[in-house]
Amino acid sequence: MRDFSQDHSCLSINTATVRQSRGTPLPLTKIIEACAERGIGAISPWRDQVAASGLSVISQSIKDHGLKLSGYCRGGMFPAADAQGLAAATADNRAAVDEACELNAPCLVLVVGGLPGALAGHAAHKDIARARDQVVDGIATLLTYAKSCGMPLAIEPLHPMYAADRACVNTMEQALDICDALDPEQSGALGVAVDVYHVWWDPKLQAQIQRAGKNRLLAFHVCDWLTPTTDLLNDRGMMGDGVIDIPQIRSWVEAQGYSGFSEVEIFSTQNWWLRDHAEVLDTCIARHRSHV
Amino acid sequence: MRDFSQDHSCLSINTATVRQSRGTPLPLTKIIEACAERGIGAISPWRDQVAASGLSVISQSIKDHGLKLSGYCRGGMFPAADAQGLAAATADNRAAVDEACELNAPCLVLVVGGLPGALAGHAAHKDIARARDQVVDGIATLLTYAKSCGMPLAIEPLHPMYAADRACVNTMEQALDICDALDPEQSGALGVAVDVYHVWWDPKLQAQIQRAGKNRLLAFHVCDWLTPTTDLLNDRGMMGDGVIDIPQIRSWVEAQGYSGFSEVEIFSTQNWWLRDHAEVLDTCIARHRSHV
Repeated sequence: MRDFSQDHSCLSINTATVRQSRGTPLPLTKIIEACAERGIGAISPWRDQVAASGLSVISQSIKDHGLKLSGYCRGGMFPAADAQGLAAATADNRAAVDEACELNAPCLVLVVGGLPGALAGHAAHKDIARARDQVVDGIATLLTYAKSCGMPLAIEPLHPMYAADRACVNTMEQALDICDALDPEQSGALGVAVDVYHVWWDPKLQAQIQRAGKNRLLAFHVCDWLTPTTDLLNDRGMMGDGVIDIPQIRSWVEAQGYSGFSEVEIFSTQNWWLRDHAEVLDTCIARHRSHV
Repeated sequence: MRDFSQDHSCLSINTATVRQSRGTPLPLTKIIEACAERGIGAISPWRDQVAASGLSVISQSIKDHGLKLSGYCRGGMFPAADAQGLAAATADNRAAVDEACELNAPCLVLVVGGLPGALAGHAAHKDIARARDQVVDGIATLLTYAKSCGMPLAIEPLHPMYAADRACVNTMEQALDICDALDPEQSGALGVAVDVYHVWWDPKLQAQIQRAGKNRLLAFHVCDWLTPTTDLLNDRGMMGDGVIDIPQIRSWVEAQGYSGFSEVEIFSTQNWWLRDHAEVLDTCIARHRSHV
């Protein structure tokens, strides 16, 4: 297991973590500058943040600052209520692959979607099995295109509390079953993003990380689970402030040969997003050394 | 599958559902009267509500009103930070078994507990595997006593969002693994309580219900998952108001031979607990017929 205590060369910042500074939106260009200033080697940007500044601007800025990407957030949201919706998802996901290529991302992270309409509070139906079938079909279609571009796809199993509205792939086992079905040769074109927030509770976690192996462990995300958690989406904790044994999970991932970044992804409307981004980034660096 | 559309003889009310009426605590004696008045055949009372009125008073009242129990809530909370805490949990759980016997409950429901101290916001450690070992040990010890009393124990897998603070048994598969370890003969002394709120998301749910079989399906709880869900604990929905396909899950349970009650358990500080309990109970009856 790598020693993170003395440096932060393996730290990546998911740009949602500093989406706001003192409660005000922070442009991605500023996030890039602030990360580079601190010797942070990688980021994982969100599509909406990239679009707000412009893809070519961001692509050039990342190069100019010598940054790498640990992933690109995100493709997915495959299920839809009708053929038109499915076609729109297909087109949008191809665009996401293209952007990931332009940004030289190591993988496109997939948040696969849940029941159509549920995110807006109006689920079109309650058939989660159908949604899951659409997810598999959607990944299969996208995988053909992504392979032709050389862009790996990383399925991110989301915590079961997001099964209805954000992702109906909710365990590592389920994600790896999809990988087995669509990429049985374990080519590296399809794998998983392991986010400790989503999977820490799983009694089968260690076994499934072992099952994944190096070729399918495409990303490793960290934050912490707070007790109490006051909001299902936006109350994620800084590493060390919650109950997840992050070093243990990292040891399992690295035992498989994972040698990539540890990406900090924190959604926090009531705490970290209210603070100055400089403080947030400095805290990420410190906690990466002490609690990851 | 039983037809619930014409009557509510299979409806049970978990008394937490009407713990408050118009925001004011409602005594269990009043809940019993209100259920009996409506021809509701069973309740599942909570220990704190029983204690508030007195065990013998409640026991007599249940008999006088011709009610049955669908379960008794609850034993569990096994993990502890020290030997003293473990001993206290053991004693408390034996008392819960005794009370369940006095009330003629068909089973004692177990919410097994999580990381010691986490419910109060101060986890003593982050070792969920250790907590899970303590749960197995605690159930094993309690099972010996419960068997001697003839009181079945129903492990309730709780939604993974409660893994830290309420229950570190989070899937049917995990609960049934414990049943296999402690009661390999499937005697009926140890089984599971299937609450749709906790397990609806699980891609292995149908398979694990089949694995459980009739002898281990000791209780069936219903409510609904709202989108959005605004609170991790107290924003459960009335059947029909959310995204869970309850009839499908009931069909799987009944296909195994389950013929017990459908128990409505809703925690809802901002909606149902603010309404008059008469309205809540009448709605439970209507939704039991239309959406369970």
